[in-house]
Order: sequence, then C-alpha cells, then structure tokens
Amino acid sequence: MYDVVIIGTGPAGLSAALTLKQLNKNFLWLGSKKLSTKINNAECIRNYTGLISVSGKEMQEVFLKQIDQMGIEITEAQVTGVYNMGDHYGVLCGDMQYEGTAVILTVGVETVKPLEGELDYVGSGISYCATCDGFLYKGKEIVVLATDKEYEHEIEYLASLASKVSVVALYKEVGLSGDNIEIIKDRPLSVSKENKKMKMQFKDKEIEADGIFMLRSAITPSILVPGIEVEEGHIKIDRHGKTNMEGCFAAGDCTGKPYQYTKAVGEGNVAAHSVVTYLAEMKKKNS
Amino acid sequence: MYDVVIIGTGPAGLSAALTLKQLNKNFLWLGSKKLSTKINNAECIRNYTGLISVSGKEMQEVFLKQIDQMGIEITEAQVTGVYNMGDHYGVLCGDMQYEGTAVILTVGVETVKPLEGELDYVGSGISYCATCDGFLYKGKEIVVLATDKEYEHEIEYLASLASKVSVVALYKEVGLSGDNIEIIKDRPLSVSKENKKMKMQFKDKEIEADGIFMLRSAITPSILVPGIEVEEGHIKIDRHGKTNMEGCFAAGDCTGKPYQYTKAVGEGNVAAHSVVTYLAEMKKKNS
Repeated sequence: MYDVVIIGTGPAGLSAALTLKQLNKNFLWLGSKKLSTKINNAECIRNYTGLISVSGKEMQEVFLKQIDQMGIEITEAQVTGVYNMGDHYGVLCGDMQYEGTAVILTVGVETVKPLEGELDYVGSGISYCATCDGFLYKGKEIVVLATDKEYEHEIEYLASLASKVSVVALYKEVGLSGDNIEIIKDRPLSVSKENKKMKMQFKDKEIEADGIFMLRSAITPSILVPGIEVEEGHIKIDRHGKTNMEGCFAAGDCTGKPYQYTKAVGEGNVAAHSVVTYLAEMKKKNS
Repeated sequence: MYDVVIIGTGPAGLSAALTLKQLNKNFLWLGSKKLSTKINNAECIRNYTGLISVSGKEMQEVFLKQIDQMGIEITEAQVTGVYNMGDHYGVLCGDMQYEGTAVILTVGVETVKPLEGELDYVGSGISYCATCDGFLYKGKEIVVLATDKEYEHEIEYLASLASKVSVVALYKEVGLSGDNIEIIKDRPLSVSKENKKMKMQFKDKEIEADGIFMLRSAITPSILVPGIEVEEGHIKIDRHGKTNMEGCFAAGDCTGKPYQYTKAVGEGNVAAHSVVTYLAEMKKKNS
C-alpha cells in the first residue's frame, strides 16, 4: 500500500511528486514517461515564473532533468478506474491494480466534450483502454477514435485482434497501415446503439461496429472515478485541493480554468501538502 | 488610472505581473526591486517545478532576468493603505497615491503576530511608514522595531529627525550607529499608551517614547486594507483569488498555508486571470 498514488504526469502531477519526494512520502506516480503531450506541443511559454521564454520542448527537458535529479520514478500506465475502498483507494490500470491511502488526480482536461450519447454506453460498447478490453473484440469489428499519434501502438494492438478497425484519427501525420485498418479523417458527432451494434455518426455518414474505443489524453473524471463530484466538466475541489471524496485530491487542468502551467503546479503543491495532513490524521485515527 | 495595481514583489506578485504583461494589461507593480527578502535568504529550494535545486539567490537572479526580459517595471514603494473608492481602488504610498480599477494583494505574511495592543494604536502612536510619518516626530523620541537590515536607511532617516531613536533590532548584524541611536536586542511583548506617551514592554523592562514605528516586511492585511475579510490572520479568498471586496484579489503567502513558492505563483496566475475577467465585466457594465 502506497501513501499516495499520483495519477497524471503533467505539471500538476510533477509538482505534487516533487513535494511528496521532498517530504519523504511513499508514493506511486502513474502516467507517461513523456510527461504531457500538451507541453511538448507548446510553441512558446512566456509567463511561467522561473523559466524565461521557453518552448514546450525546453520545458519538458527541464522537467525530465528535475525528475531524474530528484530520483523520482514514473510508472507507465493508463489508469482506467479509481475506486474508493473505504479507508484507501484502488487504482486500476488494465489488469494491474495499485493501492494508496490517498490519491491525487492530475488527469488533465479534454478540450473536446464527450460525443453525444457517449456516456450512455460506457462499459457496454464503449471502452477507454485498448489493453484492458481489446481481447473482447477478437475477430470483431471496431471503431477507434484517437486524439494523438501516441495511441498508434495501441491501435496496432487492437488491429492484431479485431477483424476490422476503422480509425477516426483526430491528429495529423497518421502513420498506421494494415489490411484491416481504415483511416477516417472526419469529425464524429454522436454515438448510438441499435440491435447490439454500436454506431458512430458523422455529418454525412454513419459507421457501424461491434465496439468503440475512445483513446484520448484525458478521460472524463466521472467515468474514471465513480462518485466524484464534477462541475461543468471539471472536478470540484476546495482551496486545499480536496474533492468530495475523503482522501481524494485533485490539481491542474482537471479542476478548471485557467488552463495554465503555473496554476497547475501551484495546485499540485497544495494537494501534496493536503495529502500529508490527511495521512497524519489517518495515522492518528488508526493508532 | 491603471487597470490593475499589484502590491508586492514576491513570487505571487511576479507571477501575476508576467501574466498581465503577457495579456497586455496596463498595470502598476509596487514593491522592492530586490523582490523578496525571504527568497534571498533561502538556502536551497528543491521542489519548485522547473528550477532544479536552486539557492534563493539563484532563484532571485532568474526572476530578475525574467522581469527584465519581459520589459516589466517595478515601482519601488512601501504601500501604507489600500482604499476602496467604489468603482476603483486608491493605493497610498506615503504622500503618493495611485489608482487602479482592480488590485492584487501579494503582501506576504508576517511570521510574527502583531504585538499585544499594537492594533489599538494604529495611526495614534504607531506607524508603519518612516517616509510618511517621520516628520511628525521632529525633535521627539521614538522607538523603531525593525525585522530586517534593509530598513536601516529608513531608521537613519528617522534618526535625522527625532531627538532619540531606540531601535528594537530583530535581525543580525546591526549596522547602525549615531549619537541619538540606541540598539535594543530584546523581544518586545506588548505596547500600550499612557498620558500621550507610547510604551513598549519587554520581559524585564519598559521603554517610553512619543511614537513607535513598526518596520516589517509585511503589514497585517486588516491594517493595510480597511474592510478586507481576514481568517486566522490570512486574507480570505475563493478559488479564483477573489476577496470579499469586489475588484480586490489576493495571492501568495498572505492567503494562507502552505507557504510555498509554487503555491504562490499558482495563485498569482489565477488572480491575474480573474482580474482580466473582472476588467471585461466592468468595461461591459460601463459601456
């Protein structure tokens, strides 16, 4: 059991990790070793206090160097669910499960809203994790919506199982090819289900499949953490980073605007300090 | 009339200034060109996201370079009062007055509490500004409490006016000398007033004078900004940096723990964005 599981490797997660490391807490940090796609794509950041007119790539390099210098590990994983187990949290990543007394959610924000109808079929036709649910579609037809090139290896994995994969690629320079892969360069509008078949609607057409995978950089919080209070698509927190669930804290873009690196690191720092207070309270309660 | 007056040159004020500059707002930034005494004295900062194990001096150098590179000006001033004028704020610095549609308070926190009795004599025996009130004590006896060496030039100014200056020096390496200067190395406990004379009590003694100057790095918020809501000595804000006074925002240590640079820059960024929203609302209202 870890003291804390931090979910997300953007600036908010990094800031929380640095402070928890500094305070000698036993934490697990889940996300991508590439940190954040958004940062990497940023052209020039001028208002981040302490980094003078940096490109996203330069910021990323500094962050990676700092992680290395502090001896912090990132465990690469796609978190698919965070469950309140009473006195601790279970964090599901495909078929791996981790446990923490507390969790810090720094899961970012999806700039596109869920498709119309999407939330109605979560777990019954719509999946967010190729590794977890791919095997369900062996020999079947699927649609995969992907927002970033980084998901191509997951799509290739799905194509090794499914009979046909229609890829709705919402990014540039698609590098996929294969006999059973079809690329669709069009924006989907909605999803629906009819006679056990999933359907995805576009302006001028509709496609049909046995299942749909949504591979995005952020999962809608209410899907990821059952029971979490959400306000206009953002996780609701107080000034200490507390959510409505005891022991569950949040920081960064997922808690609302401004979507700024500086705001994110500030909230990550606050959440880490709140976790430390929470851990001390729990220890006292259990002793 | 400025769009915004930022008060304080610590990390919160800097972060707000960078964002307001980036967003082309017309702002005035009041404080010290040396930024923050606290930073300068910090030995090693390991958990500031983006600066890898820096000393306070190194952090300060980066901050100064960034201010210069962004073309931001600091106006050196000791703010003595912030007054709500209905649709704007008046910011008093000795005999200078500035005006802003909004204000951002990043005034830090005093780690020592006001002395017992201190708040009862503000403006009637106790002053916080040598430049503003020094002339009132020409030929008279005064007590000066100072928390930092940086106030020595103000004390010398006071000594050029007063007949006798008793300096309660709460810092090391006192560099003051003069026929009418007496150094007291003792912690004061309380202040009182009797027969128009101010008195300061110590464990074993009491000193008397015509007036007392308190030269500290931060002024108690309720003294600085009449009407501001304070909670346990900190300015009460919501998640957007709003105080109880419309158009008055706050960020950094003055809003509460954790007293961390990362938290401070995050709040400065949020306050700056909230000000921008507020300015747009005011413009709409007045058009």
